[in-house]
Amino acid sequence: MAQRIVPDVVVRRLTQYYYALRNCRKRGLEIVSSQLLGEMLNVTAAQIRKDLSFFGGFGKQGIGYNVDSLLDHVQRILGLKRTWPVALVGLGNLGRALLHYQGFEKEGFKIIVLFDSDPGKVGTTIGQLEILDDKEIAQVLPAMGVRIAILALPPEKAQEVADMLIEAGVRALLNYAPVTLKVPEGIWVRQMDPLVALQSMTYYLVSLEEA
Amino acid sequence: MAQRIVPDVVVRRLTQYYYALRNCRKRGLEIVSSQLLGEMLNVTAAQIRKDLSFFGGFGKQGIGYNVDSLLDHVQRILGLKRTWPVALVGLGNLGRALLHYQGFEKEGFKIIVLFDSDPGKVGTTIGQLEILDDKEIAQVLPAMGVRIAILALPPEKAQEVADMLIEAGVRALLNYAPVTLKVPEGIWVRQMDPLVALQSMTYYLVSLEEA
Repeated sequence: MAQRIVPDVVVRRLTQYYYALRNCRKRGLEIVSSQLLGEMLNVTAAQIRKDLSFFGGFGKQGIGYNVDSLLDHVQRILGLKRTWPVALVGLGNLGRALLHYQGFEKEGFKIIVLFDSDPGKVGTTIGQLEILDDKEIAQVLPAMGVRIAILALPPEKAQEVADMLIEAGVRALLNYAPVTLKVPEGIWVRQMDPLVALQSMTYYLVSLEEA
Repeated sequence: MAQRIVPDVVVRRLTQYYYALRNCRKRGLEIVSSQLLGEMLNVTAAQIRKDLSFFGGFGKQGIGYNVDSLLDHVQRILGLKRTWPVALVGLGNLGRALLHYQGFEKEGFKIIVLFDSDPGKVGTTIGQLEILDDKEIAQVLPAMGVRIAILALPPEKAQEVADMLIEAGVRALLNYAPVTLKVPEGIWVRQMDPLVALQSMTYYLVSLEEA
C-alpha cells in the first residue's frame, strides 16, 4: 500500500492514541468508538477517523475499533515493538535524573552510552556505564547503531554536540537545552526545556490579567 | 492599540526570539537583521517580520532591530519581567530534580509550594518547603495567587490533581505525566513527558529503515 505523507501533528497525536488505547485495555474495553477516543484526546470523532485513515482502514462503521488490534497497529506504526538504543549526553543533575528514569527502559528506550565533556566526570561510571568523552562520539557511536540521543547540556554546547551526534548517525534528538538546534532535513528534534515551555505560557497569563 | 489574536505557534516562537536575542546581546550585537534572526530560528526573514508585526512595529526597514529594545519588548510581551510563583505537585525523583533545577528561579519562576499524596512524604521538608497533602490544594493555593503548576505525577493521578489545581486558580500546567489532560477553555498545558516525545520520533526512524 502506498502511504501518504503523514503530517507531524498526526504522528504526535498517534502517541496519544497509544496511551489512550492502553488505558482502554486497562479498563477492560474490547471495542472503542471514535467518539470515546475523541473524548479521551480532546478532538472530534471525525478527526480520529481522519487521522487513522492515513494508516489504512481500521474499525468498522457503527461498531468501532477493536482495542487490542488497533493498539497493536499503532505500536507497529510508531516503532514501539522493539528496543531502541539511546545515547545520553550531559551527566549533570538533569542527565542523572533522566538516566535513572525507569520509564525509558520499560517502553523500549535503553540508554546504552553516556558522554560528557567534564574531565571530572569522564572515566567514572554510573551503574554499568562508563562516561565517555564527548570527543569520542564520532569514533564510538556509529558501530553502536544509535539513532536516538538525549541532550542534557548547557545551551552553549548543545549545537556543537548535536552536529557530532548527527554526523555519527543519530536521527532523533530529545533536546533539554534552551536553544533552537539547527539540523539538516531528515533529522527530528523535540524541544524539552521546561523553561521554554513555561515562558510560552506566561504570555497568556499576562493577557488574562490585562483583560 | 487593538491587539490581534496571536496564534499559539507564534507565541511559542516568541520564546525562541527571547533566547536568540539574549544570544545576540551576549555576542555584543547592537542591531540584528530579520535575516540573521531567521537563520538563528530556522525560519525565513519574512516569517520573522510577520511574527513581530503581531505586536506592533519594531525595527526599521533596511536597518534591522535594536537588540536591547526588541529583547525588552519580547520580555514584556511574554511576561518575563517579573517573578511567577509556582506550585510543584509530585516529589518523586523527577519532582525533586525539577525542584533543584536552578534555571527556574534565575528566569523568574519560583517554586513556593509543594504537594504530594504519599503519607510518607507529606509533612517532611525539602530546603525551606514543607510537602503538603494534595487534598489541601483547594484550601491553601488560592490565597497564594499561584497561576502556574508543574505536575510530576503518575498518569493515573494527573487529571484529578489538574482539576483541583484549576479549581484553585491555576491557569498554566507543565505536565510531565504521559496523559492528555482535559482542561477547560482558557487553561494552558504544555506536555513534557520525554517518553511521549521519543515515541513521536521513532515513527520517522522506522520509515527511514523501510525507505
